[in-house]
Amino acid sequence: MINIDRLLKNLKDIGEIGKGLDGKGISRLAFSKEYYDALRKLDNLARSKGFDTKIDKIGNLFITYNPNNKGKFIMIGSHLDTVKNGGLYDGALGIFSGFEILETLKDKKRHLNHGIILACFNAEEGSEMGGTFGSRSICGNNIISDEFKEKLAFYNLTLDDVKSCEMNLSNVVAFLEIHIEQGGTLENEKYDVGIVDGIVGITRYNIMINGTANHAGTTPMNLRDDPIRKLPNVINKLYKEAKKFDQPFVMTIGNIIIKPGMYNVIPGSVEVLTEVRDLEQSNIEEYYDEIKKFVKADEKLEIYKNIEKPSVKLDENIIKIMIKTAKENDYNFKVMSSGAGHDAKEISKKIPTAMIFIPSIRGVSHSPEEYSKPEDIELGVNLFYDCVVEIDRSI
Amino acid sequence: MINIDRLLKNLKDIGEIGKGLDGKGISRLAFSKEYYDALRKLDNLARSKGFDTKIDKIGNLFITYNPNNKGKFIMIGSHLDTVKNGGLYDGALGIFSGFEILETLKDKKRHLNHGIILACFNAEEGSEMGGTFGSRSICGNNIISDEFKEKLAFYNLTLDDVKSCEMNLSNVVAFLEIHIEQGGTLENEKYDVGIVDGIVGITRYNIMINGTANHAGTTPMNLRDDPIRKLPNVINKLYKEAKKFDQPFVMTIGNIIIKPGMYNVIPGSVEVLTEVRDLEQSNIEEYYDEIKKFVKADEKLEIYKNIEKPSVKLDENIIKIMIKTAKENDYNFKVMSSGAGHDAKEISKKIPTAMIFIPSIRGVSHSPEEYSKPEDIELGVNLFYDCVVEIDRSI
Repeated sequence: MINIDRLLKNLKDIGEIGKGLDGKGISRLAFSKEYYDALRKLDNLARSKGFDTKIDKIGNLFITYNPNNKGKFIMIGSHLDTVKNGGLYDGALGIFSGFEILETLKDKKRHLNHGIILACFNAEEGSEMGGTFGSRSICGNNIISDEFKEKLAFYNLTLDDVKSCEMNLSNVVAFLEIHIEQGGTLENEKYDVGIVDGIVGITRYNIMINGTANHAGTTPMNLRDDPIRKLPNVINKLYKEAKKFDQPFVMTIGNIIIKPGMYNVIPGSVEVLTEVRDLEQSNIEEYYDEIKKFVKADEKLEIYKNIEKPSVKLDENIIKIMIKTAKENDYNFKVMSSGAGHDAKEISKKIPTAMIFIPSIRGVSHSPEEYSKPEDIELGVNLFYDCVVEIDRSI
Repeated sequence: MINIDRLLKNLKDIGEIGKGLDGKGISRLAFSKEYYDALRKLDNLARSKGFDTKIDKIGNLFITYNPNNKGKFIMIGSHLDTVKNGGLYDGALGIFSGFEILETLKDKKRHLNHGIILACFNAEEGSEMGGTFGSRSICGNNIISDEFKEKLAFYNLTLDDVKSCEMNLSNVVAFLEIHIEQGGTLENEKYDVGIVDGIVGITRYNIMINGTANHAGTTPMNLRDDPIRKLPNVINKLYKEAKKFDQPFVMTIGNIIIKPGMYNVIPGSVEVLTEVRDLEQSNIEEYYDEIKKFVKADEKLEIYKNIEKPSVKLDENIIKIMIKTAKENDYNFKVMSSGAGHDAKEISKKIPTAMIFIPSIRGVSHSPEEYSKPEDIELGVNLFYDCVVEIDRSI
């Protein structure tokens, strides 16, 4: 059994850094002074407990236990950076759960076939280089461009710095990440824990409704070419088609941009920003095919793609081990997909990967209100521990 | 008969100033160098023709003919400033039509009972002090506040400067403004000219749809409190109720503001900016009463007033004279209201006032594409001339 009090104390200690900087929450932004203060604090803690540590040039920290292994490793971890005015749990829970696993293994003096590497990633939440920069860099998954180099320079980094962080992952047999759910499904459906089988794909299209801007006072209603008149139909169609798909399919209208956007001008254009996420890429395509047909039928409408990040399915073998372990220990668990991206998504391109979700109260995240119950964390981290042990034994 | 070629030459000469500054159009913004260049050019022209002129401290120019009258005046005029990248006609057509009236009266050596003052107003289009600042100031209609004084300071003006511009208008028997329609009604319904009987009131309400912002990836569709779902009903209701009123009633949704307005966040709120204009204030109230009932029936909706500028009815007696004059000269005219505010709206609070509208091609204004046909202008200004003569004779 892991020690939940020790875990929560470590988590809360680190949460003091950057607290109250931008509101009630924690600001431990990637590459910030607060980030590096937290990183050094954790590094000192790990070394004081006798673990090997290494900090790379982009601010990732690796803490290793059982260095005298047969040259094979299991990697666990998450990210240490937060959003601005964020919560205690997003990212950091994965790191301190991982640290608790190391401490428990060490306390028990348990025999391990593999070395256990706890990876603490920088810049998952976002930097000039986009999200999951730390995990992307150890995988060598960055897309190198002049723009990318310019963005690195913003943090006094060179391409060589980033390349020096690439790791030989061929001797890592598995990556496991524990993370808060950031949604309300587990709490709502009364599950103890989630076993994540995939990370949804994200596709974004913008729909443009064209009209003619004109004077709102002098243009009679019957002489208007007002794009807002068509907006209700567009919105209703977007929701209606979304209803045809089941969870984890989600469709969000995140913004509607109206130009010129003044009281006294009939708008010239309305742009509807849409996003769809699902684990099945074919569902996303089917949805937007239907929307494209709808758009094509009206010459005033246009649609164009903004982003397409394909979904990722996590490793079947590891998920099987996790499900077996959860069943043996009578867990009330849900196999589910993640609606948000995670370091695990990048790592899964190189190493067999899976994730565990801890229930998020009211599904809140990226907020000082973020909360997960100690009893849920304890259950989840104990499962995590058992899974690490089982993977170590069986792979 | 007025001289249309002379009128258009003067109009186009002034239009060279500030041309191409911000695009293809004319930028002669209130208080700008271009504005004062134009003002001095017109002042020089007027003095070269033997008219009396006076420029006040806020940049209004007054050109007077027949100073040897019996102490009674007729005022004509419009504004000399333009919007950014505006057209040739908005405001300036009223000034050069007025100037053409003065020149024609002088050429004809016509006996007049009244002095004719051509007022060229500054800052109708807007400045820190809001629209119609020039005409508002001669009427003493400014609302004096600390904020107002601060805004004046932005133009190196003091309250004393503004007060020095107030005119004794008790000896002015009428104000007449000729202006482009800025709408498509006259062209569309094939009228030569419009006789304006009132200026619509403008009322603006914002409708707020409240929801709960949340993660667009991790919040299942059935657990969302998404305010955009209600937006189609709100928009449809706004248009449906607007249908119950006839011209000149117009309702415009000028903007929809969604917060936080990101692809990956379910919005927390949607704000719909609405504006209604009509000549009958009671129609505006009836419309919004219905909308308020609709809002009240849904606890997620709120409504609040932003602006209420009441409508103004122009002077019946002067309108009668204008209609009589138009009929006698076989004009194909429409008695109509103005959907836009004008200097005439401010002046009408102090002096019997009316307006003449010249057709705007395609209703375009505040744009380099603004255009009125020479033949329409000639017809309109000839009616304007006849009306001035008739008012001089009969009032």
